[in-house]
Amino acid sequence: MEFLTGKKIIEETTLFEILQKMPKGGLLHAHLDATVDVNILLQYAIETPGMHIRITRSLDPATLTSNVPQFAVIPQLDSTTYASLEEAPAESWVPIVSARDNFLNGGPAGFDKWALSTMMINPSEAYGTHNTLTKIWQKFMTTFRATHGIIYHMPIFEKYIRKSLLTSVEDGISYVEPRINFLARFMTGADGLENIPHRDWLVVFDRILSEVKEYSKQQGNDFAGAKIIYSTVRFITPEELEWYLQDCITLKKEFPHLIAGFDLVGDENVLHPLKYYAEVLLRFPAMQEAAGLPEDQRIPFIFHAGETLGDGSEPDENLYDAVLLGTKRIGHGFSIVKHPKIMEICRERQICIEVCPISNEVLRLTSSMPMHPLPIMINNGLPVALCSDDPAVFGNMGLTYDYFQVLAASEQNGLITLGELAKDSIKFSCLADEEKVVALKSWQRRWDAYIDMIVEKYGQEADV
Amino acid sequence: MEFLTGKKIIEETTLFEILQKMPKGGLLHAHLDATVDVNILLQYAIETPGMHIRITRSLDPATLTSNVPQFAVIPQLDSTTYASLEEAPAESWVPIVSARDNFLNGGPAGFDKWALSTMMINPSEAYGTHNTLTKIWQKFMTTFRATHGIIYHMPIFEKYIRKSLLTSVEDGISYVEPRINFLARFMTGADGLENIPHRDWLVVFDRILSEVKEYSKQQGNDFAGAKIIYSTVRFITPEELEWYLQDCITLKKEFPHLIAGFDLVGDENVLHPLKYYAEVLLRFPAMQEAAGLPEDQRIPFIFHAGETLGDGSEPDENLYDAVLLGTKRIGHGFSIVKHPKIMEICRERQICIEVCPISNEVLRLTSSMPMHPLPIMINNGLPVALCSDDPAVFGNMGLTYDYFQVLAASEQNGLITLGELAKDSIKFSCLADEEKVVALKSWQRRWDAYIDMIVEKYGQEADV
Repeated sequence: MEFLTGKKIIEETTLFEILQKMPKGGLLHAHLDATVDVNILLQYAIETPGMHIRITRSLDPATLTSNVPQFAVIPQLDSTTYASLEEAPAESWVPIVSARDNFLNGGPAGFDKWALSTMMINPSEAYGTHNTLTKIWQKFMTTFRATHGIIYHMPIFEKYIRKSLLTSVEDGISYVEPRINFLARFMTGADGLENIPHRDWLVVFDRILSEVKEYSKQQGNDFAGAKIIYSTVRFITPEELEWYLQDCITLKKEFPHLIAGFDLVGDENVLHPLKYYAEVLLRFPAMQEAAGLPEDQRIPFIFHAGETLGDGSEPDENLYDAVLLGTKRIGHGFSIVKHPKIMEICRERQICIEVCPISNEVLRLTSSMPMHPLPIMINNGLPVALCSDDPAVFGNMGLTYDYFQVLAASEQNGLITLGELAKDSIKFSCLADEEKVVALKSWQRRWDAYIDMIVEKYGQEADV
Repeated sequence: MEFLTGKKIIEETTLFEILQKMPKGGLLHAHLDATVDVNILLQYAIETPGMHIRITRSLDPATLTSNVPQFAVIPQLDSTTYASLEEAPAESWVPIVSARDNFLNGGPAGFDKWALSTMMINPSEAYGTHNTLTKIWQKFMTTFRATHGIIYHMPIFEKYIRKSLLTSVEDGISYVEPRINFLARFMTGADGLENIPHRDWLVVFDRILSEVKEYSKQQGNDFAGAKIIYSTVRFITPEELEWYLQDCITLKKEFPHLIAGFDLVGDENVLHPLKYYAEVLLRFPAMQEAAGLPEDQRIPFIFHAGETLGDGSEPDENLYDAVLLGTKRIGHGFSIVKHPKIMEICRERQICIEVCPISNEVLRLTSSMPMHPLPIMINNGLPVALCSDDPAVFGNMGLTYDYFQVLAASEQNGLITLGELAKDSIKFSCLADEEKVVALKSWQRRWDAYIDMIVEKYGQEADV
């Protein structure tokens, strides 16, 4: 059964309950702006003074879910007088509170249902109307358009980061390496002006991270923290890329403990391949040297590559370029199983594959988990870390769902495999060597207690 | 797009036209009783004196396609007086001609449409109602129940073999190795009595084969012939298997040029694994020796194995047992890509994988051709032969459709790959060494002419 169809069934199993408690190590591949439950995000939007909404086409019940709204905090002076989306001309901003209260198709509850549906992929889209890679990516991209104006508003961004980190902590994750999309050079501040630069994003991230670590410590937990993979999108020009690389270096210099790596994101199947940027990317080490970054603080590439069904296509070839460019890990690497030589190199150089089972299934790279190439990667000795990618869009919050899928799809994988995957997620993180030792030791302690708990609580019940 | 949905589009392409003319070498994996277009088969049934039909449930337009008929030639003395399926009680035999003429749901045309739908898998079943491995196999098995009584009737069997061989010749195939299901110990003769033993099946096969070879020669063609893979089904007991092995040996002694190998068929995911039969199978070489079969005439195993999505399941483990039992080739081997060690052994021992792309897609092992593991097998250096499996059920008559799917799904595969696959299908056949030399030489001559033809006729038109 497909993930989105079977999700409710999964949640009712004892196995899921057991896996929720599993110490999962690091979450190495998740896009920050898809890591908080959209129900909570919408609540943030509704509570935020000055939050407005607009649509580009007039509302029609038949096409409601494909009518993707935009949100933004609009400064007082620009405020509109429209009281509902229905009366406002297309493209006109309406205060979210009144748009919601006056929503013709079911009032506030109807509004919420609609707004949430534009921020997630639902089963009928993934398995029916959008059941191809290209179509589902189109829907996928619109979810980011819907949430962007909410998340990239500093008063919400703060809350968002806190919630994102706490969601991980609650799911037994002890370290995260979110990819943050720095494409927009500014986000909006409380006044609705789009003038908060990247540096301030990191200042806030740093502060919230310290709070969460402190809180987690008080709870007797051992959250090892978070580092950011600086990301921009594969549709920019090489000249623009140079700016982002420089920006990333500048941030690294001020926040060496926060910047973990650099990546280019977006649908590999339609956007530029890595080789399009090769000339600039090859200059990154020299740029870092010129900027005076110490040797031990060099920023690794951590590229998405091979997130494709293609065989010999550009996204498939990204795997070769990612490795040639010295990528530290590979995001997805779905098509790597077709390339014995690249697998051999990854095994030798210990390049870890960030595998996102549920993402791959929802985005139609695999029809169901038993068709997923993960066993091929594992049996070829590749280091693998399980990741959730865009949990808020796919409904796989935390890592429990992804671990569940891996366990349920195979008669080969048991707790031993899951434990090794969790360990890999710490070993192949961007934590410093000494931090890794601490994190691994702490994970092992939790794992031993976890196994004891399973034996004690579930040992009689069933053969797990 | 799925194969059954896109079939009509495929047939209209220039690429398909070009591939139809390709010399394809051998067809090494096809179940004889699914190798003749069901339209022709139904025509045979209608023309055959004494052919009757029966159904197990009364006809209901809503469940028509799931009401699977059985056919049989009934000896005169048993003949019924019912003139239509509608008036006959369930399980009662009705002459096919009158059942057809009096078919309430559209007369003869309606009857044909219904009867044919029970002999094939249609797109709405494969991709809708029966979209899982287990469900589609249930439908798949019923197609054989529907056609069995027609094919296993000697006067039709003769025509069937002729048509099957000619269909291959017309598609550019120069050698075939059909699996014939010998589970039933007898087929019916012209008088409707079920008393024609296996030996007579081979006598007829031999005669028709000679006719077709002679005919093919006269046409300036070079059909290298056919050899039979003796098959029975994986639900029998080990004791019964012993009888079939002995039967196979007896036939081999009389028809050494016709028996190519031995196999066990049926859904690996629900029937017995090879290890269930291990004790008896291991005795096969000794049985052959005791029967006085010369060394150079020993019958190899050519096992189905790994036709599954399982990971560590029994059908997945069949791969290990097939190799341990010394299989000459592997039928399907779909899950072999998860096993680097077994792939290494197959590469070293030159165990060829009989890959059936369209079968795997229709039977829901892969959702579409780009998800198929064929590139993994090729890139790991495994010998591979493309096969059609059950073309009459899947609609992939000949081998052109399967070659088309492989070519279209990859930017890596061109004519060179297809040519290598065709060559493998001769190299890894059960032709004797000297026959192989002749067949390969003949294939090369046809291939060279084929390439010249492409350049001459299509060279200007498009980049193929």
